[in-house]
Amino acid sequence: MGATPPRSPLAPERFPDLPAVGGVTLATTAAGVRYMGRDDVLLVRLDPGSTVAGVFTRSATRAAPVLDCEAKIGADSTEGAAFLVNAGNANAFTGRHGVEAVEALSRAAGVATGLPPARVFTSSTGVIGEPLPHDRISAKLQDLAAALAPGGWQAAARAIMTTDTFPKGAGATVEIGGTPVHIAGIAKGSGMIAPDMATMLVYLFTDAALSRAALKAMVSELADRTFNCITVDGDTSTSDTLLMGATGASGVSAEGNEAFRTALERVMLDLAQQVVRDGEGATKFVEVAVTGAASDADARTHALSIANSPLVKTAIAGEDPNWGRIVMAVGKSGAAADRDRLTIRFGEVPVAENGWVSPGYREEDAAAHMKGQEIRIGVDLGLGSGAAIVWTCDLTHGYIDINADYRS
Amino acid sequence: MGATPPRSPLAPERFPDLPAVGGVTLATTAAGVRYMGRDDVLLVRLDPGSTVAGVFTRSATRAAPVLDCEAKIGADSTEGAAFLVNAGNANAFTGRHGVEAVEALSRAAGVATGLPPARVFTSSTGVIGEPLPHDRISAKLQDLAAALAPGGWQAAARAIMTTDTFPKGAGATVEIGGTPVHIAGIAKGSGMIAPDMATMLVYLFTDAALSRAALKAMVSELADRTFNCITVDGDTSTSDTLLMGATGASGVSAEGNEAFRTALERVMLDLAQQVVRDGEGATKFVEVAVTGAASDADARTHALSIANSPLVKTAIAGEDPNWGRIVMAVGKSGAAADRDRLTIRFGEVPVAENGWVSPGYREEDAAAHMKGQEIRIGVDLGLGSGAAIVWTCDLTHGYIDINADYRS
Repeated sequence: MGATPPRSPLAPERFPDLPAVGGVTLATTAAGVRYMGRDDVLLVRLDPGSTVAGVFTRSATRAAPVLDCEAKIGADSTEGAAFLVNAGNANAFTGRHGVEAVEALSRAAGVATGLPPARVFTSSTGVIGEPLPHDRISAKLQDLAAALAPGGWQAAARAIMTTDTFPKGAGATVEIGGTPVHIAGIAKGSGMIAPDMATMLVYLFTDAALSRAALKAMVSELADRTFNCITVDGDTSTSDTLLMGATGASGVSAEGNEAFRTALERVMLDLAQQVVRDGEGATKFVEVAVTGAASDADARTHALSIANSPLVKTAIAGEDPNWGRIVMAVGKSGAAADRDRLTIRFGEVPVAENGWVSPGYREEDAAAHMKGQEIRIGVDLGLGSGAAIVWTCDLTHGYIDINADYRS
Repeated sequence: MGATPPRSPLAPERFPDLPAVGGVTLATTAAGVRYMGRDDVLLVRLDPGSTVAGVFTRSATRAAPVLDCEAKIGADSTEGAAFLVNAGNANAFTGRHGVEAVEALSRAAGVATGLPPARVFTSSTGVIGEPLPHDRISAKLQDLAAALAPGGWQAAARAIMTTDTFPKGAGATVEIGGTPVHIAGIAKGSGMIAPDMATMLVYLFTDAALSRAALKAMVSELADRTFNCITVDGDTSTSDTLLMGATGASGVSAEGNEAFRTALERVMLDLAQQVVRDGEGATKFVEVAVTGAASDADARTHALSIANSPLVKTAIAGEDPNWGRIVMAVGKSGAAADRDRLTIRFGEVPVAENGWVSPGYREEDAAAHMKGQEIRIGVDLGLGSGAAIVWTCDLTHGYIDINADYRS
């Protein structure tokens, strides 16, 4: 492994102050899975009565821990739960050994936390195809369990990092009927995948009470509007995992509460955008907003086609208001478009409309917007009311450096 | 416009010797559409009795010349035809002006060649969104028509280049019933699109006789197996055009002739692979062969997912036998896959099988293959008999240089 890349220029100034979440305790340690001299394992314990929901990669080559989480997540239980996460090895494409590693870790973490193995959810992120040295993790579990304590979010966010250049956290406090309810989350990821060393992992916690069904519905819907609206390179990890636990420790139910839902969406969007801001080699944060599409699904297809186009992303890196590439990306997306109704904006600058360049367009106006660190591309199809927003970053020499040279 | 990039390291040694094709005459000239000091317009005339067929971009934002060709190509005619091509300006996303430019050029070329405008097929490649100075082209048409002569393929291939670093040609001679029949073709393109200055244009000619219906069927099917199996960056031009003319001047019909079909496919594949070999920034020529898929369509989906993955392409640039990225690309493609039946090879080296690394795999064996200039990735899904081959190139700093900095 090479030197750690420098902190992303798009990173937030500092890790946020996050509230402790009743019923949630954490501990991290250095198990030496692959990295040396840093924590690489996170254990989270959720008190009895907690509900758990998850969203997982749709890859057809999902890693063993993902398949195991999916098998366990649908069960109702009042026994509590544990999340066990390691960085440095993805336990992906490891055949029978991978399944055995997950089973061994679930048993060992269950013993350490007093939970049945079926309530232990594991995630692994790092190299693909190498056997996970799970005994190194198991050997630390008693100590980890003894160290479990509330808070410690930044240490937790650091322990699960791979190619990330900064730890990612977000949180909120909402009052429900006069009682404060807390949300805290951490995430890692700096490509939708950077396969040797990345993957997107997200862990969210609240002390509000939510039934498993309500939690599952809310998390799935909000993930579609947040984490599923970001892209770095269009590649999808074999291990992407989002887990959320609701402990109910606040004594207050959040079911049907709009303020809670809004706060959770904001936390998830914040974490999702932090992943984009840590995109490999990123120097620009890009919002692609599509309106006027025949449907929301069409708008999303166009937005992702623009956001994933190497030619659009390199133009942004070059600070070039190259609207021809936007026309191209809309044209190739496969969703409905009419060239002669298309409107394109960079920031507030109208660039193209009615099938040609906008009257009075001056390239220097658009070029000024492209020089900023936050780029906004607006596209209106002029066909209907479908809309979508997607976030991405530019494609730079840094991406090539990281991904062409990573293992050497 | 910056300096011309150096000739691709993957370029063929020299332009091939191509046969003259009876009934086909060509001429090129420098009209100063955008470039100075080089030919930028090509006129081709097909004798009366020729048939014409074409394949065009499926982009929803197709350029005016493409829409015009599509409208004309289905007509039966015995009057002959002309192809008029300019480099430097794509006449794309130019609104009403674009349509008027195509109409003006069709009229002027028709007058110069003695053809009705409906038999003039125009193509334009270059910048998007700027009005085509069609009067500069029209002013040269009488001289061009007077200069029409057989052969001159290399000059023709050069006149239509934009970001291409070498002219692309291929040809064949086949005997049908003892009579030699000729095929010659030229192409340009160095990305599926590099929108300011690229697009893929292909012109094929034969003196065999083929009905319009037979020519259309053959060209469409072979384009799917050649030009539609290459990708540089997954981006699709608003102007991609393939036109083929069959003059019948040899007096021999090629309908139903397998040797002719095979020769034409070989010419088309040769041209397609030359486009990949001129891929922007390419240093490696990559063949992705997928077998054992549930269907040919699934095989193609997997092959394109691998060939378009930025992470696979950067790994190849880095000479890294990173099979985890192949697993990832198969997993994300959306086509059927079973992780535990997957087999992966780099060249002749088995890398992964049955859901894990191959027994006895030594990374240095695969790494030796990756150091070559011609990379072969083999994936067997173990599910059925579907197969597909796709050709691409690596993703390098050169691609970023060309596309981030092109217009500045």
